[in-house]
Amino acid sequence: MEDLLYLRVAGHYRRAIRSGVLAPGERLPSVRALMRLHQVSLSTALQACRSLEDEGLLEARPRSGYFVLKPRRVALQAVSEPEPGAAAMAPDPAPYSGIHDRVSDFVAKCERYPVVTNLALAFGAPEAYPQEALKNAALRALRRHPEVLVSPVPPQGDPGFRAVLARRAMAAGMSPTADEILVTHGCTEAINLALRAVAQPGDVIAVESPTYFGLLQVIESLGLRTLEIPTSPSRGMSVEALELAFQTHARIKAVVVVPNFQNPLGCVMPDAEKARLVALCEGHQVALVEDDIYGALSDDDLPLKSCKAWDRSGNVIHCGSLHKTLAPGMRVGWMIGGRWQARIRMLKHAQSRPNDALAQIAIAEFMGSSAYDRHLVRLRRQLKAQRERTAEAIAAHFPAGTRLNMPTGGMLLWVEMPGRRSSSEVFNTALQEGIRVAPGMMFSNAGRFDHCLRISCGAPFSERIETALTRLAQIVAAGLD
Amino acid sequence: MEDLLYLRVAGHYRRAIRSGVLAPGERLPSVRALMRLHQVSLSTALQACRSLEDEGLLEARPRSGYFVLKPRRVALQAVSEPEPGAAAMAPDPAPYSGIHDRVSDFVAKCERYPVVTNLALAFGAPEAYPQEALKNAALRALRRHPEVLVSPVPPQGDPGFRAVLARRAMAAGMSPTADEILVTHGCTEAINLALRAVAQPGDVIAVESPTYFGLLQVIESLGLRTLEIPTSPSRGMSVEALELAFQTHARIKAVVVVPNFQNPLGCVMPDAEKARLVALCEGHQVALVEDDIYGALSDDDLPLKSCKAWDRSGNVIHCGSLHKTLAPGMRVGWMIGGRWQARIRMLKHAQSRPNDALAQIAIAEFMGSSAYDRHLVRLRRQLKAQRERTAEAIAAHFPAGTRLNMPTGGMLLWVEMPGRRSSSEVFNTALQEGIRVAPGMMFSNAGRFDHCLRISCGAPFSERIETALTRLAQIVAAGLD
Ligand SMILES: Cc1ncc(COP(=O)(O)O)c(C=O)c1O
Ligand SMILES: Cc1ncc(COP(=O)(O)O)c(C=O)c1O
Repeated sequence: MEDLLYLRVAGHYRRAIRSGVLAPGERLPSVRALMRLHQVSLSTALQACRSLEDEGLLEARPRSGYFVLKPRRVALQAVSEPEPGAAAMAPDPAPYSGIHDRVSDFVAKCERYPVVTNLALAFGAPEAYPQEALKNAALRALRRHPEVLVSPVPPQGDPGFRAVLARRAMAAGMSPTADEILVTHGCTEAINLALRAVAQPGDVIAVESPTYFGLLQVIESLGLRTLEIPTSPSRGMSVEALELAFQTHARIKAVVVVPNFQNPLGCVMPDAEKARLVALCEGHQVALVEDDIYGALSDDDLPLKSCKAWDRSGNVIHCGSLHKTLAPGMRVGWMIGGRWQARIRMLKHAQSRPNDALAQIAIAEFMGSSAYDRHLVRLRRQLKAQRERTAEAIAAHFPAGTRLNMPTGGMLLWVEMPGRRSSSEVFNTALQEGIRVAPGMMFSNAGRFDHCLRISCGAPFSERIETALTRLAQIVAAGLD
Repeated sequence: MEDLLYLRVAGHYRRAIRSGVLAPGERLPSVRALMRLHQVSLSTALQACRSLEDEGLLEARPRSGYFVLKPRRVALQAVSEPEPGAAAMAPDPAPYSGIHDRVSDFVAKCERYPVVTNLALAFGAPEAYPQEALKNAALRALRRHPEVLVSPVPPQGDPGFRAVLARRAMAAGMSPTADEILVTHGCTEAINLALRAVAQPGDVIAVESPTYFGLLQVIESLGLRTLEIPTSPSRGMSVEALELAFQTHARIKAVVVVPNFQNPLGCVMPDAEKARLVALCEGHQVALVEDDIYGALSDDDLPLKSCKAWDRSGNVIHCGSLHKTLAPGMRVGWMIGGRWQARIRMLKHAQSRPNDALAQIAIAEFMGSSAYDRHLVRLRRQLKAQRERTAEAIAAHFPAGTRLNMPTGGMLLWVEMPGRRSSSEVFNTALQEGIRVAPGMMFSNAGRFDHCLRISCGAPFSERIETALTRLAQIVAAGLD
């Protein structure tokens, strides 16, 4: 982690450029000045400038230094905020959400047509992940610890891996001990255990609206009910609306949020909102379950804070995994159970026993080294570039009135189609031409997002993707009259 | 699997000896006769004789051939059958079983004292499993398929692995297609999914009495209730008692059985009983969940039949894993969901997503080859020897009136202490001296087995174990007056 000083310097100026403190055309302090100001070496200062140049924020002018570039603007309006009255409407929890049927239908349809361009996957392309390094770490783990294949599995997960996770959690403002971390089969199992620990069938779980359909499936499969809370595409779940919901619904037993680069909106809750949310849930003694699976994928290389950072009483259950950041093919996640730790341990044992050790040992080696930081830096740059190219293509080809979010990290774009164009129709037509997107109706039980599409930018931008987006735009336009 | 012909020949004579058709002192057909009778080569015939000799069933007399030996008898009575009236008593389901508390208490106590001799583990010692071969298979899998670490996981599990499992299932009388098999995180996850698929919180699950405490934990953690069905230590669950229970309890939604080498009794249901059980459950449209985790560990090398072999309507859910037979450190299990297949797939996806591929690819290579058969033959011999030595030590040292089961496979002995000696007391005292056993009260909610102990024979018999058993016997005797 020591050779990442340049990221701090770059982050400093990136924020200045984004906020307008450094305007387009202005000159960055000279490399010598940077060295003095930030107490860094020449090579670090240069690396910082080059990395901002790579991102398209600066341009180098020979002999004059680095200058701030005009940001490439995507000429689309931001996604609409929830209706002003929405927060006050106190919607009813969905007793049967029907999300399974919708997802099964989605899957069945997907199986029917060969996919040429998949814009529906919420993780990076295989090439975006360090396959070789992971393989080598796994080979070493196997050679050094073949006994783990035939020995009992360690109770809460491999202790070395949990120690690395505890250290890494500090960057997001948390300070768990290794012992407070429980290793799970992905974030999905963590959320299952969290909800099983705090709620009984029939209870209500408050979620963002729209939200990740996988979460709706977990809730439905556990016999729980979903209450969708209006969520701003720029600031995340409305804490006011949640407060109102607490006053009107007795059976809310947990709130689940994806505080950073929410799926599908891509929004990040401002720190002040995270703090308010934590305080509100604590005040009402309602468990706050956070799924912080994207928090490390910020364009800005400083990792975002988890809600758990503000937790003083153990009321926040934190869940994460490697699925987006490191290894889509290894089912490894984790959770910090807070005041439900003992019950969660028991449930994990009864549900699937502790995870096997081998993968954890391999990942601990990689995540314990600076290779992981370097990988993340590369991945963030790549996702940023792919997101921008995709957004530009959407802006160029989609019909007038299309709205688009512009997340500052992650891999998801959320598109609002004009004229309330039906996402199911667009999905069906596109699918038959080999283009797969995630239709908005999968992200809510309320049907309020049927004119939206989630478009993933996990794969390297290519002509094939450009063509697919152009065709998708035509399909959208064709249905408008 | 081709070089295991000798096992068939050996099995033929083992059964003849066990059933008394070949009496002690009688002479086996000559090697030449065996070759002719079974159409096998000289070396196969010899190998069959030697393997029976190794088991202590035959002795070779120079120039005269092989003769049947008198079986070593363990001079203890068999474990008591359930009271004759038990079946008619129609016990009430336990609304709250309290098993979690008991298991937590057990675990907490175990953590307090260092263990010197662990007789509480229901799997073999690490040395009993093919660590090197598994390591090499995993190394090859990694080198050939590093892409699986960073690619999406295959929906129901690795197709190659499921094909091997389908082929192996035939030996137990089943004939699933690879597509009907779902890979899970151990048998534990399979049972969870099965019960979640067929029952709702509050429903009743009929189980053997006594039964594996892990099963009682699953049931309790899902908010289900347990109904314990009288179970014969020689023939397994009483089908009559179950039939009565069906008549008196409306909410029985599933029956869970461990048909082969039941934990803790070690008993095997006769095929006719399995067939009756399958028919009874089908007739009442109550799901039959079978946990056949020990079926491949029969002294007699022919694998035992699973209940699923008699299933004609998809009413049997079959669950298994590698935990006992191949790799205690790899969390890989599987299930055949029968008529609940679609719902089980959905629940697996919502609970933990499909398993990662790497371990499955490695295991598929090993299980697809005859190395797996050879490993099983070795493991069975070893477990048999360990079981016999342990049983002899118990017979030699435990106080008069002790009763003991004598399973024909697996690794578990079930001991009934005289004078209704309390297993909790024995457990507590032994624990403080570094000896760990599983007390009978963990295997039932009814308190009917508090004078029993489960003693595992998973580890190679040694002087240390002999000493521990001697000391255990003294502890048992000390409490009798
Ligand atoms: C917000 C969110 N949570 C959880 C998951 C799944 O996590 P895992 O694969 O670690 O179970 C996803 C993946 O799509 C996601 O977007
Ligand atoms: C009857 C029985 N079922 C299931 C298990 C656990 O299976 P797994 O480790 O595959 O989850 C055990 C292990 O103790 C067992 O004895």
